[in-house]
Amino acid sequence: MPEKVGFVGLGIMGRPMAKNLMAAGYELVLHNRTREKAETLAAETDADSVAEVADNPREVAERCNVVITMLPGPPEVERVVAGEDGLFAGAKEGSLIVDMSTSSPVLAKDLARQAEERGVRMLDAPVSGGDTGAIAGTLSIMAGGSDEDFERALPLFEVMGGAITHTGPAGTGQVVKACNQIVVALAIEAVSEALVLGSKAGVDPEIVLDALSGGLAASSVMKVKRRNFLERDFEPGGKVKFHRKDLGIALTAGREYGVALPTAAVLDQMFGALMAKGRGDWDHSALITLIEDLSGDHT
Amino acid sequence: MPEKVGFVGLGIMGRPMAKNLMAAGYELVLHNRTREKAETLAAETDADSVAEVADNPREVAERCNVVITMLPGPPEVERVVAGEDGLFAGAKEGSLIVDMSTSSPVLAKDLARQAEERGVRMLDAPVSGGDTGAIAGTLSIMAGGSDEDFERALPLFEVMGGAITHTGPAGTGQVVKACNQIVVALAIEAVSEALVLGSKAGVDPEIVLDALSGGLAASSVMKVKRRNFLERDFEPGGKVKFHRKDLGIALTAGREYGVALPTAAVLDQMFGALMAKGRGDWDHSALITLIEDLSGDHT
Repeated sequence: MPEKVGFVGLGIMGRPMAKNLMAAGYELVLHNRTREKAETLAAETDADSVAEVADNPREVAERCNVVITMLPGPPEVERVVAGEDGLFAGAKEGSLIVDMSTSSPVLAKDLARQAEERGVRMLDAPVSGGDTGAIAGTLSIMAGGSDEDFERALPLFEVMGGAITHTGPAGTGQVVKACNQIVVALAIEAVSEALVLGSKAGVDPEIVLDALSGGLAASSVMKVKRRNFLERDFEPGGKVKFHRKDLGIALTAGREYGVALPTAAVLDQMFGALMAKGRGDWDHSALITLIEDLSGDHT
Repeated sequence: MPEKVGFVGLGIMGRPMAKNLMAAGYELVLHNRTREKAETLAAETDADSVAEVADNPREVAERCNVVITMLPGPPEVERVVAGEDGLFAGAKEGSLIVDMSTSSPVLAKDLARQAEERGVRMLDAPVSGGDTGAIAGTLSIMAGGSDEDFERALPLFEVMGGAITHTGPAGTGQVVKACNQIVVALAIEAVSEALVLGSKAGVDPEIVLDALSGGLAASSVMKVKRRNFLERDFEPGGKVKFHRKDLGIALTAGREYGVALPTAAVLDQMFGALMAKGRGDWDHSALITLIEDLSGDHT
């Protein structure tokens, strides 16, 4: 029988991740700020699975040796892990906290240091792949922390994820996730500028994508988001507002580590402009609509 | 016996392209501003191939029904095609001029219009793939012009290229090439910002590349330029100075067609900074050295 696992944060990502763990036979202790979400999920257990609801993160940590967190961002991570009635307050010595939120590398290192002082283990293990990947159990997981803790969490990662990378010591999972978000944002922007230039100059967008897909310009974004660009379907997918949050984390990391991120900074501004235009809940491929807005009449 | 083909511009790209045509049995009429280069190439013919040298583009056009040009940029294209002793001055009615230089979409449309007035046919057919692709005969070719002219040039394209796309009417080949250069520049910049952030934050660059290669962040640049980034080998490849010229063309096209290209404009400035630092002849993956310079100590 697998060990009892705590899960804090049952939003669009956390809920399907927790469900997959339940389906794999793990007994879960659930907590969510809106308690109802935890109760709904606990009620979905069948004969083969067990889940209970805890009142706060401290209680989750008291009842489990491994706790996963999946939260909106750094402030929530700090509060749930190190705040009043947080995981640290309840965690037994030797417990493992796995923060799978996209959060700050510097915060991740700091929490890992605080954990160590308490005899608690910690991994930062953010994911990519969105709610689709969370539902399918095919998330990419980038985990920072010790070899031992990575091995301990691996069976859980294998339930939730596909490509699983141990990126190095504490904080490095968040660093690699920040790198990922920079590269994806720029790839979307590149295709957006190319397609609007092409359209305005009289070239069919499909021809631009096809011609560019054969060479050095080719990218996953061109393939995966092709339909979004061509059919102007901006149902998320990866939301503008979340991607902007992630770029904020990347830019803060750049400040902390003294790294210039000139185009990531421009992209942060552009995602901000999309939010100001009320498109924060659109798919991040909607960057193309901003280039169109800046270029006069839509196509 | 294939028809006689003119070839103007025997630089790092034009020379191997012309050689491949000679090897395929075409009889060539060569011209180069530095005459010596044309003479050297003509002297390399063997028993099966014939090449002669002409004094100027006009003479080339007088002796051939199809002329290919491979020149540094828009000013040279305009001079060779429409200038004194240029191709238009010698071209017979029904002749086909195939400009394979990377040049301005607006100039390409304008020259095609002038050609039409003279009863001359014209294609803009820029390439990507660099000197390696030119030598191997595997260039990607993006050709704008009429269906009929595209079909006429196709056997020549098939000798020089691999992926061959008919992009639409005159000018669209150059538009798609401009799109390509925007996307490649941003892909290199994206990897550069990610790798410098990763390095400064203590993550092995190979781990960053491996973790990002599995998902939405993946790109050809990550694969093709991997060794350049990791081994800091900036032997070209695609030179900084040529890529900057191409971005200049893209930005001018953006002005002409009223398209905002905010990150392409930043990249143009960054390639300019690399040139100011004396790195114009380095491979374009050297963008990473600029991010390092902006981020303090090199790794």
